[in-house]
Amino acid sequence: MSMFVAPRIAIIGAGETGCGWATLIAAAGWPVALYDANTAAAEEARDHINDRVRRLVRLGLATDEEVARGLEQFRIGRSLLQAVNDADWIIEAGPEDLTVKQRLLEQVEHVARLAAVVSSSSSSLHASDLCARLRRPDRLLVAHPLRPVELIPVVEIVPGPLTAPTCVEDVRFWLRRLGRAPIVLQKEVKGNIIGRISAAVWRECIGLVLEGAISVEDLDRAVSMGPALAWSAGGPHLTHYLSARGRAPSMYLNTMLGQHEDLWESLATWTKLETEDQHKLIRAIERAYEEDSNALLAARDSRLVAVLNAMKRS
Amino acid sequence: MSMFVAPRIAIIGAGETGCGWATLIAAAGWPVALYDANTAAAEEARDHINDRVRRLVRLGLATDEEVARGLEQFRIGRSLLQAVNDADWIIEAGPEDLTVKQRLLEQVEHVARLAAVVSSSSSSLHASDLCARLRRPDRLLVAHPLRPVELIPVVEIVPGPLTAPTCVEDVRFWLRRLGRAPIVLQKEVKGNIIGRISAAVWRECIGLVLEGAISVEDLDRAVSMGPALAWSAGGPHLTHYLSARGRAPSMYLNTMLGQHEDLWESLATWTKLETEDQHKLIRAIERAYEEDSNALLAARDSRLVAVLNAMKRS
Repeated sequence: MSMFVAPRIAIIGAGETGCGWATLIAAAGWPVALYDANTAAAEEARDHINDRVRRLVRLGLATDEEVARGLEQFRIGRSLLQAVNDADWIIEAGPEDLTVKQRLLEQVEHVARLAAVVSSSSSSLHASDLCARLRRPDRLLVAHPLRPVELIPVVEIVPGPLTAPTCVEDVRFWLRRLGRAPIVLQKEVKGNIIGRISAAVWRECIGLVLEGAISVEDLDRAVSMGPALAWSAGGPHLTHYLSARGRAPSMYLNTMLGQHEDLWESLATWTKLETEDQHKLIRAIERAYEEDSNALLAARDSRLVAVLNAMKRS
Repeated sequence: MSMFVAPRIAIIGAGETGCGWATLIAAAGWPVALYDANTAAAEEARDHINDRVRRLVRLGLATDEEVARGLEQFRIGRSLLQAVNDADWIIEAGPEDLTVKQRLLEQVEHVARLAAVVSSSSSSLHASDLCARLRRPDRLLVAHPLRPVELIPVVEIVPGPLTAPTCVEDVRFWLRRLGRAPIVLQKEVKGNIIGRISAAVWRECIGLVLEGAISVEDLDRAVSMGPALAWSAGGPHLTHYLSARGRAPSMYLNTMLGQHEDLWESLATWTKLETEDQHKLIRAIERAYEEDSNALLAARDSRLVAVLNAMKRS
């Protein structure tokens, strides 16, 4: 029987995503080094990550023992070289800018082990572009988490055409060990899966508010207490499949698609929101959420944690 | 202090939606009469509703005491007159066909008390059309639940231009007492709120599978383990608001909208799926879910109940 040995992980970038990754990984008891060219930001991240990791224990999502081991092994890299040179997995979490990321990944490659796997956390850039300055593009892939990284389980893995399958398998394996739900895309598409679905939802949600059909907070409540609950238990395709109560897709799909034609015809398709509509939307959001945003955040996070715990148990 | 007196409720239609309403209401201990022109269907519904109500007790979503009271008062109406004549709230749950519903509502009006409120469960028809044959269109509104009615909390209340505000208030009040999350639309829009958002999601989900970007089950998992969880804790507008970490909408919205323009430009906009694509989609769904659909349904429901319980507690 082979014992699992946790990979040594380096995270480049101490912003929200980098700190989220560090929280997740340290809370699992795995060794992490965090590096940011802005040394002050990196040093500040230490306390922030410490707090976030301990919060996971309070929330019942991590154990004291693993957290103690993780925090003991957590370090801030004094240089890129020092952070990266012994890492098995390097997570790039820099600014969402192609040129910046390309240069950063090139620097990483100079100091990383040949066998290291490099994943970019980019939500919108793809490995096929990110690898432009690399000699070893086969070691690079995108692994895009949602925020907060330590809470939302899904991670979109997007290999580029040159990515080595073993790198995909390694990252998928590690993510599963971290309790994540990695999803491997079969090709690079703009916005990946989640970005596209979220954009479709957001556009319609904006349109409904601007049309005066519903207030911002009622719309949010409708989604929360309705389709979001249904989809958290079974995604959109499964929901339709199950609502057909055992009939084969060939039996229900045609009818269901036909019923949707008029509706699809009527959905929002604009791609740019005029200034006047922007102001209208801003006022509607302010009216809905003018209360303390820290209180809204705390309430949201407590609902999220309750749901995550429920999913874990079921 | 005034005691709450449960309304007497009549449900017309013993299909999935009618049985769902009956389950919800009987489980709360309120008196319900169920009527269906097909007497055999109505009689069969009795056992079915009994089972579903008792299941809510097992799931921790209803108490023995309330359920006993509700089932004791539950009856199958021998005629429309007998079911409806003493009802305070009449829930129409007939077939989704405008002419059929118009005639049914006309018949209901003939035998109902003048003070009764009538709600249609229609997902796609509006009170302004449904009331065509009524002398008292002010007593009619749409109250559209999702399925399973006794589990998913949201109910879309859609008044027509003629609906009396007191009817809206009564139905909203009763739904809240039943533990529902009623949302009142400010105007009639095609597909209401949830139908439109779900249609936008489904179109993009179909497009992504047909494009070969992801498999059906991975897409479902991505939504379940990602945005659906996030949205169940805070709807789409709130999610964006909170991700801006305390900045005012006027500060983040313009940037965020700008970042979405290309993505919106690239989303699926077709309204009709060609036969060849339908076959491709059917095969993809079959490949994903060829296993026992009862097992899939049971697993989905158990996740859903776990999440609902978590939401209730948090």
